[in-house]
Amino acid sequence: MSTKPDVAFIGLGAMGFGMATHLVKQGYNVTGFDVWAPTLARFADAGGKTATTPAAAVAGAPVCVCMVATAQQAQAVLVDGSGLAPAAAALPPNAVILLCSTVPCGYVQALAATLADPSGPVRRPDLLLVDCPVSGGATRAADGTLSIMASASPEEGLEHPLARAVLGALADPAKLYLVAGGVGAGSNTKMVHQVLAANQILSGPEAMGLAVRLGLPADAATLDALLASPGASWMFGHRGPRMIAGFQPLASAVNIIVKDTAIITGEARRAGFATPMTSVVENVLYTAVNRGYGLDDDSSLLRLYTDGLSASASAAASSPPSADAAKTSLKLVVSLLKGIHLAAAAESLAFAHFVGLDLDLVLDLCVNAAGGSAMLATHGPAIVALLRGEAAAGEAAADSLAAIYKDLAAAVDAAQQIKAPVFLGAQALNLLRLAMNQAKAAAQSAPAAAVVKVFA
Amino acid sequence: MSTKPDVAFIGLGAMGFGMATHLVKQGYNVTGFDVWAPTLARFADAGGKTATTPAAAVAGAPVCVCMVATAQQAQAVLVDGSGLAPAAAALPPNAVILLCSTVPCGYVQALAATLADPSGPVRRPDLLLVDCPVSGGATRAADGTLSIMASASPEEGLEHPLARAVLGALADPAKLYLVAGGVGAGSNTKMVHQVLAANQILSGPEAMGLAVRLGLPADAATLDALLASPGASWMFGHRGPRMIAGFQPLASAVNIIVKDTAIITGEARRAGFATPMTSVVENVLYTAVNRGYGLDDDSSLLRLYTDGLSASASAAASSPPSADAAKTSLKLVVSLLKGIHLAAAAESLAFAHFVGLDLDLVLDLCVNAAGGSAMLATHGPAIVALLRGEAAAGEAAADSLAAIYKDLAAAVDAAQQIKAPVFLGAQALNLLRLAMNQAKAAAQSAPAAAVVKVFA
Repeated sequence: MSTKPDVAFIGLGAMGFGMATHLVKQGYNVTGFDVWAPTLARFADAGGKTATTPAAAVAGAPVCVCMVATAQQAQAVLVDGSGLAPAAAALPPNAVILLCSTVPCGYVQALAATLADPSGPVRRPDLLLVDCPVSGGATRAADGTLSIMASASPEEGLEHPLARAVLGALADPAKLYLVAGGVGAGSNTKMVHQVLAANQILSGPEAMGLAVRLGLPADAATLDALLASPGASWMFGHRGPRMIAGFQPLASAVNIIVKDTAIITGEARRAGFATPMTSVVENVLYTAVNRGYGLDDDSSLLRLYTDGLSASASAAASSPPSADAAKTSLKLVVSLLKGIHLAAAAESLAFAHFVGLDLDLVLDLCVNAAGGSAMLATHGPAIVALLRGEAAAGEAAADSLAAIYKDLAAAVDAAQQIKAPVFLGAQALNLLRLAMNQAKAAAQSAPAAAVVKVFA
Repeated sequence: MSTKPDVAFIGLGAMGFGMATHLVKQGYNVTGFDVWAPTLARFADAGGKTATTPAAAVAGAPVCVCMVATAQQAQAVLVDGSGLAPAAAALPPNAVILLCSTVPCGYVQALAATLADPSGPVRRPDLLLVDCPVSGGATRAADGTLSIMASASPEEGLEHPLARAVLGALADPAKLYLVAGGVGAGSNTKMVHQVLAANQILSGPEAMGLAVRLGLPADAATLDALLASPGASWMFGHRGPRMIAGFQPLASAVNIIVKDTAIITGEARRAGFATPMTSVVENVLYTAVNRGYGLDDDSSLLRLYTDGLSASASAAASSPPSADAAKTSLKLVVSLLKGIHLAAAAESLAFAHFVGLDLDLVLDLCVNAAGGSAMLATHGPAIVALLRGEAAAGEAAADSLAAIYKDLAAAVDAAQQIKAPVFLGAQALNLLRLAMNQAKAAAQSAPAAAVVKVFA
């Protein structure tokens, strides 16, 4: 059997279209399906074949990539049909399904059970279901350099040559993570990565909003200073330029991260884990959706933090702050970001530990993907050590919990003076405080990573 | 000396005007001062005398009541002047200052130090400063039936006959609380009461917003059902009718509770205590202020939860839910309120414990004042017991932490399905979860009151 099997590709959205066309360029024979006809025509122009039902797309294809937006859609195209013949029953014997959508662990485990159920609607125990969500954005999707976190049951399924070939074509070789734990572990890995993604999609607007209310211009200089600081994150680097350019072009809609936060908090409730940081993100996002921002680029979340400011206020060109005042304000904003990103790192890694993931793998994945932040890189190893019950080695003494708390408290104080909302900053501050009070006598010298003990 | 001394009354706002006129009706000779001239004219019409500076108001008055809005204003009228001769230096020897404003503990302690400082700007160690914030609203202010929490240094100051006479004239006899702990303890008592007030000013709109999004009408029937449930609170009973009547009439502006939440979170940071519930309230309130709602009645906070709904949606008259659906929805909303009020009770009482207040006094005060809720009445005694390291007696087994968590989780799940923001509900849920995970094996049977252990 060739290692370039025929591939059925279901779901040609922003990510899926790039992935599918990349496979075409790599010489794969790809038949695409999407409910939106114009996308199908565009895929045909790019050299793909097209089908009008999921079942037709998978006919004769030993590998089916499913890259729809939600678990509901995956269930529809694979199992239920919802008016169009579904894929699972139509796949050839011993075919591979690569489910690349971001879905709850609970869903993909239920799907595996449904496929294998001898009295169920599909009865296809011969199929190999690979739970392999992706990360990296549309550009890396089209380049075949995604981060992919793949798991299967049994785990030997990950050695399947066709699965490995297609995953290898889609992923950066250094960023194809084979996750132990069976079906669901891949989705859980994506989920804990998205804890960071969600918090850092919102921390950028929160920080820029505070910066503007403190009198800093929402411009490239402010952005560059923040991105060069310990408050930096991949998300801020990615969204920041759009944040200061009218939220254009549309790269990732608010509704996308809304979906992912609901997976995080929903799975957390199911598992019995607290996600105080992500729950705040989720509720702020619902506010955005209800105000009509769901289809806009998520850089536009800045608007939630600039209510009541005139459009010209963000330019602040007429009365720029003094150099000293600007430096003081910037430090406050950096402190805000540091505190948020530390708390988010603790929540993400504690959740990974809670659901039994390999913490080294998760940390390596997150640091090098869209969830990356300077704080995660600095404090992640110590957080992992504490979760394992080891000493938190490797943190500088200057970065004690008390020191980061103090700086964050100054930022929250400053925000309070001007009635600037800092939902995430205030939440992080309270979590740091709970951790310090739990640590009691050791609070002054507790490492920053000790904030994770609130969760564990 | 008569027990009806001449009284100077500084600050004739909604509360102060009622208090001052009540004193006039009781036969006191009252000289009022306010920066707003029309109020002074109205006070003269009500039988009071008026003055044009704080110093003129207090000339010859052995008792000065200060009922301005903020610590900044108190500092201005008593000490600094800000263009008008201040009161403290002008008071007769051994006079009494009753500071009834809601101010931070830190401020009133600093004021006491300033007055007594032999090298300071005032040098009036002869004055007795009583720290005596009030609660109860404008109606009870005018009736002389306020709740008052009074403290002094030394504590014998509370026995001063003139102080007792005037406090007695302003307070309901059963609701005049003499708080041990010296100057600052009265303000701390008000502060922990306001934890409940702030959370319950917002929980009503959050609950009504969820009700409306679940298809219930925002009408008297829904309100009455909620007020008859374990989700009831004094605030919801007070604000609810205005919430369903176009937020009229203006009774308490959003800006008032904004000021109080800032005192709570600011003092919490100063003391080293975490206030996760009140911090969420504060940030939601800042959103309201920045959207221009600061001067509106705080029942109008409902608007933050109904973004994107048409005005007619709240009536829902065209398609009322079935009786079963309405019952299910109501239960979810009650569960939301129960969880929030339990978490708020824990935060309030844990904060009281943290700053060294008498928990029996605080609980009695709060249950019978604007901070009251059904959950506080039910679970407050057990929370107090746990804070003292005793067993949490008196809670029904059906009200375990796990049971309340489960109901609240169902409400948060339902809200997630329809993208309804439930900032406080989600926060309470995470706090209950942290408490359950700390309790570990005991989680299933832990009393609801055990949520307080997150704070302590």
